[in-house]
Order: sequence, then structure tokens, then C-alpha cells
Amino acid sequence: MESLKRKILNEATVLSEKIIVVNSFLNHQIDSKMMDEIGDEFFELFKDMKATKILTAEASGIPPALATGMKLSIPIIYARKTKPLTMGNDVYKGIARSATTEQTLEIMVKKAYLTSKDRVLIIDDFISEGYATKAMCDIVDQAGATLVGIGTVIEKTFLNGRKRFERPGVPIFSLVRIKSMDKGRIELE
Amino acid sequence: MESLKRKILNEATVLSEKIIVVNSFLNHQIDSKMMDEIGDEFFELFKDMKATKILTAEASGIPPALATGMKLSIPIIYARKTKPLTMGNDVYKGIARSATTEQTLEIMVKKAYLTSKDRVLIIDDFISEGYATKAMCDIVDQAGATLVGIGTVIEKTFLNGRKRFERPGVPIFSLVRIKSMDKGRIELE
Repeated sequence: MESLKRKILNEATVLSEKIIVVNSFLNHQIDSKMMDEIGDEFFELFKDMKATKILTAEASGIPPALATGMKLSIPIIYARKTKPLTMGNDVYKGIARSATTEQTLEIMVKKAYLTSKDRVLIIDDFISEGYATKAMCDIVDQAGATLVGIGTVIEKTFLNGRKRFERPGVPIFSLVRIKSMDKGRIELE
Repeated sequence: MESLKRKILNEATVLSEKIIVVNSFLNHQIDSKMMDEIGDEFFELFKDMKATKILTAEASGIPPALATGMKLSIPIIYARKTKPLTMGNDVYKGIARSATTEQTLEIMVKKAYLTSKDRVLIIDDFISEGYATKAMCDIVDQAGATLVGIGTVIEKTFLNGRKRFERPGVPIFSLVRIKSMDKGRIELE
């Protein structure tokens, strides 16, 4: 996705050796046209997987997941990081670790919405160290559902996060791969 | 929006006199097709307002805001409830109060993304007691931006939340209005 690559090279800033700031188009302010294109890209990549649900995590995973869900015409579920009163106790849980805060956190999905009949596509904004994606894979497994694919907008390949969750037969697609952020300079693959 | 009304009457449950649970299609699992229609509805209602940005609050405001932003081809900004490391300190703040937890919370928007030149449309999932919408109006005012309209998926009109933020010349549209939730029964206008 050339438009996304240009955005990253022009607007993203490097905060530390593992963290880039993409607040202007992906994580706080959202470029809606770009998000629509991201939905189209994931649609093309995953349209034959017969996915029944998309799973993501709040909050920054919601835009790419929804844009994709609208193209595939399937529901999305966003795992919650805090449990609202309305959620109840009947939940699947995964343990994630934030790349930005270094804290572990629990993500939760209500059991009612993910069953062994579901074919699940995981969509998120980043694969960094892979903890969040792994937590979502764990939730899919707890539900006895079938994981059909994993899509991310940006993958920091130099952190090798996919080693935590890659498995045979489950394609992982990242729209942009960052191979290095040394000395404040973003280098794409 | 008849499809949305049916969903509410068939799937929503009443948790307390002020709270309904819409986890199955609006707040945790998202019906993507319905969200696409919600975007179409808000597009029709607000397409002549010359909005330059949509403002919402994480996490549950993101789906209707993004669906609308994709139709209007303008960026959305989601106010954050916790400040990630990537956000910096240069932020506008509003004080909201959650209808579900009864706690006050700060919502924040990075100053760089909202200026006095912007014409802002606020989109959210609920107007309950009106605190969250009021907090977003305060942020628009701090930026010196022009508030051009407010749209919400569901308004609980019996809580009269709009009294906190209504102002002359700023239309408020709610797609579904709940006039009563007495004795666990949802009654629409």
C-alpha cells in the first residue's frame, strides 16, 4: 500500500527504539480515506477465507477491523481492556503486554459472541512484540473457533513478534513492514 | 432507522434504570452492515454542514464515527481516556462522567489535530446524561473550532442529556430515541 508507506515515512515519528508515533493518521486521528483503502486491501487478502467474525482489541484496532468488516460484511468483536458493567462475567481472557507502556493487561471477549463454529480473522493496527496478537489467538483457541488469518496494518519485523503466534496454515499479512527504526530513522522493507 | 430499532427491541437488555446492554451489535460485537447503514444515515443528515473533522471518544464511539467519516471523506479524531506514551502533553481536556460506572474521567485530544479553522461534527454511540458529549463540546470550544452538529446512534431522551450541551444553530440528531426503560421494558419514541 504505497499511500500508507508514504504516510509513515512523512508523518510518523520515532519515540524510542520500539515505538513509533502514528497519531496523525492511525491511532488518535484517523485518515478515513486511508482506512477505507486498508479495508479494501484486507478484503482482497482474506476474502476467500470464509471468515465469520473479525477479532480485534480496543481501541486502536477498531478502525482497521471495522473497515475490513464492512467490506467482508461480517461482524467484528473488539476485545475490551477494562470490563464495563454491561459485560458480565462470562468472558474469555488473554494476557497481553503493551509495547508502549510495558504493562501486562488482560483483554476480554464475551463468550456468547465467539463459538466453535466461528472462523476468525484477527485484524489489528500493529504487530510489535506480538503479545496482543498472541492474546487474541488464545481467545480464539479458548472458544474452540478456527483461526483463518491474521492481518495487521504495520508490522515491526525487527521485533520478530510473529514468532509468538505463527502456526501452520494460518496466513499473516502486514500491509507495511518496518525493518528498522535505528537512530530515529524508519526503514521499510 | 428501522433495522436499528428492531435490533434494539430484539437484542438489547435493560441492566438498570439508566443502562441498556447493546453488546451484541453496537458496543463489543459490532454489526458491520448496520454500522455501514449508520454511516449512510449520518452522511445524509450532515452532508451539507461542511464539516472538516469528526470528533468522538474511545472506544465505543469509534465505529459510528469512522463509518460516518468514511462516507464524508473527512478524518475522525477519537478522544483518549488514558494518555498513551505517544500522546505528549499538548492536549485539550474535557471532563466526562460514565453512565455505566458513575465515575468521572478525563478525555483528551492532541491540540495539533483540532484548530480554529476546523468545523467539527461530534458523533457518538449514546447520549445518556450528556456528560461525554458536553466534554467533547468543551474540547471543540478550547480549540476555537466551530461545532457544526452532533449525531448519536441512541439517545435516552428521558435522561434529558442534551440540556447540557444544546446551543442555537447546532443540530442534534439521534437515530433512535428511547423514551422509557421502566421495569426492564424499552420503549422507543
